[in-house]
Amino acid sequence: MKHSLQASFAKQLAIASGEVIMPYFRTPLEAINKGEKAKYDPVTEADKAGEAAIRKLINKHYPTHGIIGEEYGSENENAEFVWVLDPIDGTKAFICGFPVWGTLIGLLHNGKAVFGMMHQPFTKELFWGDGKQAFSDIQGKESRLKVNPCLDVKNAILSTTSPLLFKENDLKSYKRVENAAKFTRFGGDCYAYAMLAAGQLDMTVEAGLAPYDIVAHIPILQGAGGIITTWDGKEAENGGKILATNSQKLHEEVMGLLTE
Amino acid sequence: MKHSLQASFAKQLAIASGEVIMPYFRTPLEAINKGEKAKYDPVTEADKAGEAAIRKLINKHYPTHGIIGEEYGSENENAEFVWVLDPIDGTKAFICGFPVWGTLIGLLHNGKAVFGMMHQPFTKELFWGDGKQAFSDIQGKESRLKVNPCLDVKNAILSTTSPLLFKENDLKSYKRVENAAKFTRFGGDCYAYAMLAAGQLDMTVEAGLAPYDIVAHIPILQGAGGIITTWDGKEAENGGKILATNSQKLHEEVMGLLTE
Repeated sequence: MKHSLQASFAKQLAIASGEVIMPYFRTPLEAINKGEKAKYDPVTEADKAGEAAIRKLINKHYPTHGIIGEEYGSENENAEFVWVLDPIDGTKAFICGFPVWGTLIGLLHNGKAVFGMMHQPFTKELFWGDGKQAFSDIQGKESRLKVNPCLDVKNAILSTTSPLLFKENDLKSYKRVENAAKFTRFGGDCYAYAMLAAGQLDMTVEAGLAPYDIVAHIPILQGAGGIITTWDGKEAENGGKILATNSQKLHEEVMGLLTE
Repeated sequence: MKHSLQASFAKQLAIASGEVIMPYFRTPLEAINKGEKAKYDPVTEADKAGEAAIRKLINKHYPTHGIIGEEYGSENENAEFVWVLDPIDGTKAFICGFPVWGTLIGLLHNGKAVFGMMHQPFTKELFWGDGKQAFSDIQGKESRLKVNPCLDVKNAILSTTSPLLFKENDLKSYKRVENAAKFTRFGGDCYAYAMLAAGQLDMTVEAGLAPYDIVAHIPILQGAGGIITTWDGKEAENGGKILATNSQKLHEEVMGLLTE
């Protein structure tokens, strides 16, 4: 699949998902507690409806492709091309009415993230990339995404979703970065990765991520010039503890703080 | 001033401010560190331009009214009517490109908050109230604001901007509420108060607020059925440590936790 084809198909998926999700935004929600892995990790009807809409289109247009999704699990996940979906990343933001959740649509080719898109249907924003280039469409205005050139942690802006999401030792590692950073912005969810790619902040440090939380961000961020790996420097496709920065230099400095 | 007149004039102020602020949103910012009261409390050119636009209109249409603003200080602050302004509440959110900052326009009558408006020009949202009623205009659709009826802290959603904004003893008090709540959403800024009024979350706990951070929220939240006071139960107009809840019952339970 070429980039232009990936982008136009992913946009079709994002729009279909956004149409079924938006009627649920800011209406009373029956959130379902999914399990023990977090204090509160709700699945909403909107999440399910969004993923169903995307799966239907993939199955129709690319029946040989695999799918890994937050809500309905995996199908044909050893295929050459596999779509990795999170219809509502940032479910707490969604429940609270904050427009910083997003629909994440990633594409793996032989296990490597080669295309990603994030959609925020309330603010009407799309962010996408293929590892070489990245773009945004903000309320109809298209631009190239490019990271900020800040290179030192003491001048760098950090974002993470919540300090409550780190376990004990990870919290210590995270805190070293927080203490070294210029300032920290909480409540990021997927929106933080988009703003990192757009040059509005300089790094994100998170833990406990699933593949569907991160695959879409990889080609967007790399296409904007950024670096994204696990805390031990491995490829980010499998999730876990993730460090994303605007540059190799900042990445090395923050890796030093995380593994001190 | 009648409510309808207050609302139409405040909307005029919000639009004028939004027009001069928006060109700065998501462009590189020269943020200025204002002082010691916080680790990082930037003032932007946008902030100044927004407040200047609002002051000009107030001075033209209501020359006898006083003004208290974040950027340009106080003028005639002992007048019967005093406008209390924060052109960009949530400057860190603004710098990071997150659309959860807002323009706060409050009106005091003999020291009591009688009208408030919050404007988010990127998402095209207005929230306003006069203590008896409250409304929103979300991308052109007007609705009544009404708090969520959740009454117990264990089922209540908490929001605060950042746990880093609490000093040592205040952090302990705050943590008791966080531990008791259903879950906590960070990165709220002014947006959290609007979402509390809209019934999307149940309470906010914050410290170190200035009058211009809070005056506008009081009549909106009270108009939506909520309660807002200091942590020791006094009127919120002077800022400081602020507790806002959806109901008197939840307010009493959280006050118990804060002052344990």
